[in-house]
Amino acid sequence: MPETPMTGDLGEIMAERRAQVDAALDRWLPPAGEAPATIHEAMRYSVFAGGKRLRPMLALLGCEAVGGKAEDAMPAAVALELIHTYSLVHDDLPAMDDDDYRRGRPTCHKVYGEAVAILAGDALLTHAFHVLTDPATSAVPAARRLQMIAEISAAAGSVGMVGGQTMDIQAEGKTLDPATLLTLHSKKTGALLRASLRVGGMAGGAGDFALASLTRYGEHLGLAFQIVDDILDIEGSSAEMGKTAGSDLRKHKATYPGVFGLEASRNEAAKLLADAREAVRPLGDAGAVLAALADFVGRRRH
Amino acid sequence: MPETPMTGDLGEIMAERRAQVDAALDRWLPPAGEAPATIHEAMRYSVFAGGKRLRPMLALLGCEAVGGKAEDAMPAAVALELIHTYSLVHDDLPAMDDDDYRRGRPTCHKVYGEAVAILAGDALLTHAFHVLTDPATSAVPAARRLQMIAEISAAAGSVGMVGGQTMDIQAEGKTLDPATLLTLHSKKTGALLRASLRVGGMAGGAGDFALASLTRYGEHLGLAFQIVDDILDIEGSSAEMGKTAGSDLRKHKATYPGVFGLEASRNEAAKLLADAREAVRPLGDAGAVLAALADFVGRRRH
Repeated sequence: MPETPMTGDLGEIMAERRAQVDAALDRWLPPAGEAPATIHEAMRYSVFAGGKRLRPMLALLGCEAVGGKAEDAMPAAVALELIHTYSLVHDDLPAMDDDDYRRGRPTCHKVYGEAVAILAGDALLTHAFHVLTDPATSAVPAARRLQMIAEISAAAGSVGMVGGQTMDIQAEGKTLDPATLLTLHSKKTGALLRASLRVGGMAGGAGDFALASLTRYGEHLGLAFQIVDDILDIEGSSAEMGKTAGSDLRKHKATYPGVFGLEASRNEAAKLLADAREAVRPLGDAGAVLAALADFVGRRRH
Repeated sequence: MPETPMTGDLGEIMAERRAQVDAALDRWLPPAGEAPATIHEAMRYSVFAGGKRLRPMLALLGCEAVGGKAEDAMPAAVALELIHTYSLVHDDLPAMDDDDYRRGRPTCHKVYGEAVAILAGDALLTHAFHVLTDPATSAVPAARRLQMIAEISAAAGSVGMVGGQTMDIQAEGKTLDPATLLTLHSKKTGALLRASLRVGGMAGGAGDFALASLTRYGEHLGLAFQIVDDILDIEGSSAEMGKTAGSDLRKHKATYPGVFGLEASRNEAAKLLADAREAVRPLGDAGAVLAALADFVGRRRH
């Protein structure tokens, strides 16, 4: 296994990046008082709900790993978090997963009603693409930014994240074969995580070789992240997760441990994270933070 | 009132443009059989439901009115129709307007269920932005295309269409003052209609002067369109409208005739359409089709 020399600093780097992302989200979202106030309040309620900011983090670190400046990836980082947030708001709706709580707080539709929650999700998704066009905030050339919009819209759409959510809904109560479960995971969470690394790399001016490294890293990390999530749903306490442990099981969700067993799932996650670290080794020291982040994903408890 | 010399040909031009738009939508949407098939079927079910294609038409005609080639505006035309369609799919949901029929056919959630309808709307919105980035299909420079994405995302988002829908929901059962009703209309339908003209102009390489003409035309036409819509909801037969006449009234929707009365509404629509025709007069012969389209909106029965 490759060494991860920056593990000690990772917590600090992540806290710093997280604060930068939160400040950027605050700057780019319309003020809560802007008319119509309800929609802007609902958008902010959902965005500032204690998220880990994993996707923005991956975009910023991906940019830096190829020698770019993190600030050039910030519009993409913000857009990715807005898209992730909208997907949670819609996922929690009664017609979808019907969740009353997320991260220990009432979900958007519990606070603002279903209609506003649907619209807040729509507005967050739409605003993500607006942020990606902001001419004042990025030195990335226009053609590259179009590429980034293409990448994110493909990853978030019907052949990516929304496609995965569709499969997830249709899989409830069914036993999936391993290949179908992998496809589901790779679309539902994998596609946007992979895109986060890739658009970060694009913002940083990555060439084909570096972009391929980030892509492999993103694919391995994305699947490992989902497997660890599934394991934590079984093992984690409600307090740590901010939602009810075992809720996937109760909803008959297709999960990795459900199909492959708990022990095999743990081994697979460890192997994928080792592969992720290996994938960014060619990037040298600049990739070390990403390698450390892979360790962090393996150790996370919520 | 200015003359509208091309009125006679307008039906032909519109039918031709409509066929081109339908072919482009078919080309740009993922095939119905692409996995996961349900989401792609639901997207196509909603897009190919007999829409008038007004927004694409405005984009193509706006492009031509400033001397551009209609094909350069086609990605924007497709994107605008995908966004319009998603807004109808979400608007029809039980938590929103709760409509079982649209244009005489069962609504998306009646056919595919609420969860898939929510996701199909999300996917249509996301795909709109993907189409706008397609590098193979437009001679429009990258920086201009970013501007077009900025324009559309602003018009469709929380300060535009989604903001208007939020106001509309909150206005149900209340009596609105005239200023609030105008704001509601200008956001809910006006913003995207205005943007349709503007992005068409941008695709056609419009300078500031021509863009200002299209913008004024779009604002006048957009409000007139909504007023005529409100009038038709009261006067039109169910068969012509494809939905139940008087449904706005029954839902206690805020309407123009409800606030200003029927006669004043008819007069206002006629005045706005005259203003719209006047706005494109500086564009000369190239703007004549838009002028004729304003007449058409005034005469429409459904």
